[in-house]
Amino acid sequence: MGGEGEVQKVSNKQVIFKDYVTGFPKESDMYVTTTTRELAPPQGSKAVLVKNLYLSCDPYLRGRMSNQPSNDPDFGPFTPGSPIQGLGVAEVVDSSHPDFKIGDLVWGNTSWEEYSLITAPEGFIKIQHTDVPLSYYTGILGMPGMTAYVGFYEICSPKEGERVYISAASGAVGQLVGQFAKLLGCYVIGSAGSKEKVDLLKDKFGFDDAFNYKEEPDLDAALKRYFSEGIDIYFENVGGKMLDAVLLNMRPHGRIAACGMISQYNLEQPEGVHNLTTIVFKRIRLEGFIVFEYYHLYSKFLDFILPYIREGKIVYVEDIAEGLESAPAALIGLFSGRNVGKQVVAVAHK
Amino acid sequence: MGGEGEVQKVSNKQVIFKDYVTGFPKESDMYVTTTTRELAPPQGSKAVLVKNLYLSCDPYLRGRMSNQPSNDPDFGPFTPGSPIQGLGVAEVVDSSHPDFKIGDLVWGNTSWEEYSLITAPEGFIKIQHTDVPLSYYTGILGMPGMTAYVGFYEICSPKEGERVYISAASGAVGQLVGQFAKLLGCYVIGSAGSKEKVDLLKDKFGFDDAFNYKEEPDLDAALKRYFSEGIDIYFENVGGKMLDAVLLNMRPHGRIAACGMISQYNLEQPEGVHNLTTIVFKRIRLEGFIVFEYYHLYSKFLDFILPYIREGKIVYVEDIAEGLESAPAALIGLFSGRNVGKQVVAVAHK
Repeated sequence: MGGEGEVQKVSNKQVIFKDYVTGFPKESDMYVTTTTRELAPPQGSKAVLVKNLYLSCDPYLRGRMSNQPSNDPDFGPFTPGSPIQGLGVAEVVDSSHPDFKIGDLVWGNTSWEEYSLITAPEGFIKIQHTDVPLSYYTGILGMPGMTAYVGFYEICSPKEGERVYISAASGAVGQLVGQFAKLLGCYVIGSAGSKEKVDLLKDKFGFDDAFNYKEEPDLDAALKRYFSEGIDIYFENVGGKMLDAVLLNMRPHGRIAACGMISQYNLEQPEGVHNLTTIVFKRIRLEGFIVFEYYHLYSKFLDFILPYIREGKIVYVEDIAEGLESAPAALIGLFSGRNVGKQVVAVAHK
Repeated sequence: MGGEGEVQKVSNKQVIFKDYVTGFPKESDMYVTTTTRELAPPQGSKAVLVKNLYLSCDPYLRGRMSNQPSNDPDFGPFTPGSPIQGLGVAEVVDSSHPDFKIGDLVWGNTSWEEYSLITAPEGFIKIQHTDVPLSYYTGILGMPGMTAYVGFYEICSPKEGERVYISAASGAVGQLVGQFAKLLGCYVIGSAGSKEKVDLLKDKFGFDDAFNYKEEPDLDAALKRYFSEGIDIYFENVGGKMLDAVLLNMRPHGRIAACGMISQYNLEQPEGVHNLTTIVFKRIRLEGFIVFEYYHLYSKFLDFILPYIREGKIVYVEDIAEGLESAPAALIGLFSGRNVGKQVVAVAHK
């Protein structure tokens, strides 16, 4: 708007991280404020400026709210007084980087604000397919989708006809693992925390059956009801008591992909798991994985999943919160299971 | 001694299992008695009669003292009023089976008595190499040796220079895992429960260092002392608190071979393990295995280990109790760590 050489400034709403958290995080651990941002990369930089469209609420962000160092800055603690960081979908609005031009759509690590300056945009993945909802790149076509793909196909060693159990099954990852397992011809049971979610599992995602874990005082008995012959594959999203009950029901040579243990992240002292001797006697493999180590498989994954999405053979349920003002509640809601499907925050629509 | 057609009878000392055990087993859960046995297989059978020479005291026998069903009779509950069963080295004294002749030396499942009638001798492995102590076929050349071999090479995916930790390290399996790891060029630390055992680890088995876990009130701190950069491979023999401390010290992509969890076998309620979320964050693989599923590798294993034994590059320490009278104490002693090295009962010497 100004004269030559003068940089345009825009109002920039942000979700600021207040201070490190112990125990269960609260909405008040963040606050929304409005600052301004210059809409141009610094001179001589290779930065890009993006307009954030969709932000991803993911359980791993809980770890970044604690003051625990990490070797990887994308997993390290948030900086108090600065915006929350995480994965998102964005549009390039200015670029000093030769690989990115104005109008490019990207997904990757950004900040919880309207406009972000990305000083190392090489980590961004350019979005090539826009015939599907852009928000999908926070979910089925992004990190959670890759997590389901890697966890199921690379870690679980699944075979047709095997018995698969998924906890947090209606979440961003679980709903996909269940659909992958059904496509392979597995028997698939999921658990979730409300009737609405259980209905989704059965009616929308095609699970063989599902149950509400909150209504099961004896998880071992619940699992025995659905798996009279035991579990071959457990896709672990919750940990704690659920893992303990699953261990009692695993079949010999069962596999457990440890994707996450969300029930434990907010506890000062994690729950004890008592039934680990079954790992010896049943010859179980319990294996953790982190999707970021498998991004070399991303284009193979897109080739695999895009046709299923276009043909409607895989569906995806998102829970989209509108506006940055709703972001703190959306993030906190993950830990009480408030979201139904993948939790997204829409900052702006494209 | 009798006339034609009359079968010779011998006095047959036996170790009888009294009744099912809960909690810590006691010597008085067994008793020694003397019966007689006909020294010939039943007519029309394919049985063999063996004279037992060495019996193997193994932690897994604790499971067979509980009344918990198993699909495999070699792992199923003992029969109250009948002899303890387990692995041993024996000499064939009569045979109705075409594959076995008088004088053959074998190892496999037998009973805790002087003479045993083996109705399905096909499970026996014939001993071909007798230039090494026969008792070794209960240990380094038998099930524990195979356990160390399979657990280390097949489950741990070891690489030169990796940091290896072994609990119960002076036992039947641990002493071999440590020597295998040293041969591969790993950094190897073991723990055991007495100064005598710790000295063995350092002075006889060539571990880089070792410590007495009973003198370490803080196992996490002890492990940090020896593994300032963390543990790549943990060979798990004990479970419980030790596993919990190890989990805090694993390096990314670490592997834990769950061979046994002897500290848990006598507890009514196993200890809780609290640090399992590290399996996700550190991308750890915790894998149980049972050696009996790998016996197809046995001849390959013998080709591997016999030269090392003959050249003195791998040594093996046994704790040999003399006579069946000493067998109950020898078995019970396993669970308090009384044995130094592989616990064997010598029934008769050859």
